[in-house]
Amino acid sequence: MLNMKMILDERGKKYILKPGVEFQSDLGIVKADVLDSAQIGDEVKSHLDHTFKIVKPNINDFIDLMDRRCSILIKKDIGQVLAHTGLGAGSRVVDAGTGAGAIALNFGNVVGETGRVYTYEIREDFAEVAKKNIDNFGITNIEVKNRNIKDGIDEDNIDLIFLDLPKPYEIFEDVMDSLNVGGWLAVYAPYIDQAETSYRVAKKLGFYDIEIIELLERGLEVRTQGVRPKTRMVGHSGYLVFARKL
Amino acid sequence: MLNMKMILDERGKKYILKPGVEFQSDLGIVKADVLDSAQIGDEVKSHLDHTFKIVKPNINDFIDLMDRRCSILIKKDIGQVLAHTGLGAGSRVVDAGTGAGAIALNFGNVVGETGRVYTYEIREDFAEVAKKNIDNFGITNIEVKNRNIKDGIDEDNIDLIFLDLPKPYEIFEDVMDSLNVGGWLAVYAPYIDQAETSYRVAKKLGFYDIEIIELLERGLEVRTQGVRPKTRMVGHSGYLVFARKL
Amino acid sequence: MLNMKMILDERGKKYILKPGVEFQSDLGIVKADVLDSAQIGDEVKSHLDHTFKIVKPNINDFIDLMDRRCSILIKKDIGQVLAHTGLGAGSRVVDAGTGAGAIALNFGNVVGETGRVYTYEIREDFAEVAKKNIDNFGITNIEVKNRNIKDGIDEDNIDLIFLDLPKPYEIFEDVMDSLNVGGWLAVYAPYIDQAETSYRVAKKLGFYDIEIIELLERGLEVRTQGVRPKTRMVGHSGYLVFARKL
Amino acid sequence: MLNMKMILDERGKKYILKPGVEFQSDLGIVKADVLDSAQIGDEVKSHLDHTFKIVKPNINDFIDLMDRRCSILIKKDIGQVLAHTGLGAGSRVVDAGTGAGAIALNFGNVVGETGRVYTYEIREDFAEVAKKNIDNFGITNIEVKNRNIKDGIDEDNIDLIFLDLPKPYEIFEDVMDSLNVGGWLAVYAPYIDQAETSYRVAKKLGFYDIEIIELLERGLEVRTQGVRPKTRMVGHSGYLVFARKL
Repeated sequence: MLNMKMILDERGKKYILKPGVEFQSDLGIVKADVLDSAQIGDEVKSHLDHTFKIVKPNINDFIDLMDRRCSILIKKDIGQVLAHTGLGAGSRVVDAGTGAGAIALNFGNVVGETGRVYTYEIREDFAEVAKKNIDNFGITNIEVKNRNIKDGIDEDNIDLIFLDLPKPYEIFEDVMDSLNVGGWLAVYAPYIDQAETSYRVAKKLGFYDIEIIELLERGLEVRTQGVRPKTRMVGHSGYLVFARKL
Repeated sequence: MLNMKMILDERGKKYILKPGVEFQSDLGIVKADVLDSAQIGDEVKSHLDHTFKIVKPNINDFIDLMDRRCSILIKKDIGQVLAHTGLGAGSRVVDAGTGAGAIALNFGNVVGETGRVYTYEIREDFAEVAKKNIDNFGITNIEVKNRNIKDGIDEDNIDLIFLDLPKPYEIFEDVMDSLNVGGWLAVYAPYIDQAETSYRVAKKLGFYDIEIIELLERGLEVRTQGVRPKTRMVGHSGYLVFARKL
Repeated sequence: MLNMKMILDERGKKYILKPGVEFQSDLGIVKADVLDSAQIGDEVKSHLDHTFKIVKPNINDFIDLMDRRCSILIKKDIGQVLAHTGLGAGSRVVDAGTGAGAIALNFGNVVGETGRVYTYEIREDFAEVAKKNIDNFGITNIEVKNRNIKDGIDEDNIDLIFLDLPKPYEIFEDVMDSLNVGGWLAVYAPYIDQAETSYRVAKKLGFYDIEIIELLERGLEVRTQGVRPKTRMVGHSGYLVFARKL
Repeated sequence: MLNMKMILDERGKKYILKPGVEFQSDLGIVKADVLDSAQIGDEVKSHLDHTFKIVKPNINDFIDLMDRRCSILIKKDIGQVLAHTGLGAGSRVVDAGTGAGAIALNFGNVVGETGRVYTYEIREDFAEVAKKNIDNFGITNIEVKNRNIKDGIDEDNIDLIFLDLPKPYEIFEDVMDSLNVGGWLAVYAPYIDQAETSYRVAKKLGFYDIEIIELLERGLEVRTQGVRPKTRMVGHSGYLVFARKL
């Protein structure tokens, strides 16, 4: 992943490159050896004489372009999970459900080679897509488990368990067992009732620092006439419930 | 840092432990060898027979307890920077100003041993505090530079440059030079005028994907009578301006 | 009320004047005949030679200064009720509970002499305070009823029924009977559960155009250095549930 | 207006009725004398045997159905103006620009027969539309003036002057002259710069209680699975600047 390259065409369209594979689009072909020897920032030409730029992609570029079958978390929510729980290089994470693997990739990107992500997905088709995506991203610290997390969490000494499930609170006892002392549970809950029940169950089980948070994101628009908040805004994605084992 | 320990007393008060140093508080003393051999989750007794728990701290625990002389970014904003720019293990970051080092520590925590953070601070006293804090945290991937970033950014191939300065836009040309193709500029701007000028200058210099974002965070309160949003809420911290070199 | 006067001292402190009554404060005395003959905008002197201004008060000045024993609705919520239901001069309103009479005064101020407000309050002490306040305001279109609204709503052909009660939905059938075809029910609900149950019950009873709305109010601060949203902000007051009889 | 009737068809579509005029739609014809003698709440039949209900319309029904050529203020903003300034029956209001007359109708609805609204519109076509709308609503307390308000405000002893203009601050001196002592200036400003300049000019001219406010409105959604904030939300309409003459 550290050596991954992305190619950007003149229209701003971006594509992830695979080592040893030539690039083809409606703007022409670029040979594999040209791409492989190009450095970040270099410009290359297609056989139709169109110019392309070699760009260093990041995790978001990859997720934008990969095979996604289900909706993915928006950045404000991912960011809050990262920042609130203090996730970092070397951390150990469990997440469920995997979906197409986006959130596992976000975690894998942060915890790095010294960390580890275990991601549970009950549906076989999603697990397959996720495996392929993770493989393509070239990261080796994520393990996709095609299993129902309700049948048990195999891992322990975990720093963060992230749950995006209809009834996350059903497995909070297991979560408690698998977490490090100091580790965090984080739940993504679109409905207020899910957040409320998560809060009450976490409280009952003896978790600490339980909080339900929502973030509203609004853009600011800069025009010739002046500045104003954007008219378009997402009213709600989900609540984040945080609880800590101490 | 991966082996750092924290001690938690019966009142929920927490302290970072240093290897080889005994712990003292009004609830008694715990010997250094007891602490050094204790595992995460163990309980230890002080000479006054109070019970303490050994906890794995994270970056937030450390920042809460370290010497802070200036206000620090709140988590929603840190998280948005991490998620929006796709920062991960191995990334290279420049930030200014350092202050007490909190944001550099947040970045250092994420980029890990294979990444690097260069943090510029014009004031010598702040730079000293930051160095001490970073040293105490036991992380070796952050370099504190007691220099005015307006005199030039020494580094290149940078993935993220984060600026929390009164007039960040004065150095956007330098920022452009130091960033990787694909790298991000992120600005923290409490005032609308700062955000606006940052936007206009970034646009003029040819940055891509320029956006001004603000996040509003609100908690949900769970009481016996029911659930309701919290009455207390921070109305504003700062705008985040993002711009990408492509 | 249309001829009511307010006096403003040099410190910006305001007092409602009563016809025929002299004004006294620590800044001196102004005689009744001076006050009675003064016009809006005139300046008068106290016997201690302090200057006071005669100002036309409005409903908000009066409510600010009257005897208030319980918390009152904030303006964003009152305004939304007025605007959403299209309340105007001549409208007929029922409200419960009265409290110190603030919301009844707001309604009375809008519906005017050709309209009418019936306000139900179960507690005798509150009803007495409300009567006194309404009397002092000099408005004659509000009737305070020291009765439990759950024992029945006496009035019909009502344009707006506003309920600020713990379990408002218990009387929605009665509300339906008392409303005009085209009239509105409006509920103020601090808790989500109250709003939800109100919604479900209103739906079941055949109300139309049912909506739950919340308003977040934020100020903008203008300083020498620039403009920014205010740091202080109320996170939540209550939800407003609207439902219409058609 | 107090005797105005609206007719509602089986699909929930509504139409304002005019006295002495028969009703026609694709669901049939209802004779004028039937409509004129019908009471609020009565059901009438068309010649095609469809059922219609006679409903008491309010100002919002009328505005929804009238000829609108320009965007109109949303209710949260109208409501805040009403509540913040304490507008009521008998108040005297100036507003500019009129547009199709919606805000003038809102004010006229509240101030009633004992109050008065003077509305300035520079464009003749808009002024004509507004006059027709106001006439149709059957209210006689609104005077449409096809004049540029920058040429002077004719009225005085005004309780509220509401400005929805590109550069409202150009006439604040005139506003000050025309307001009652105790009266309010209210400005609707989509851009931050307009709000800021309005604030600074109002301050310079000696207005009191100057505030810039914005309201964010969000709905709550009640579904079988539970309750959640609505995904769709308007991110911004405009700022409201309030300033008082004291």
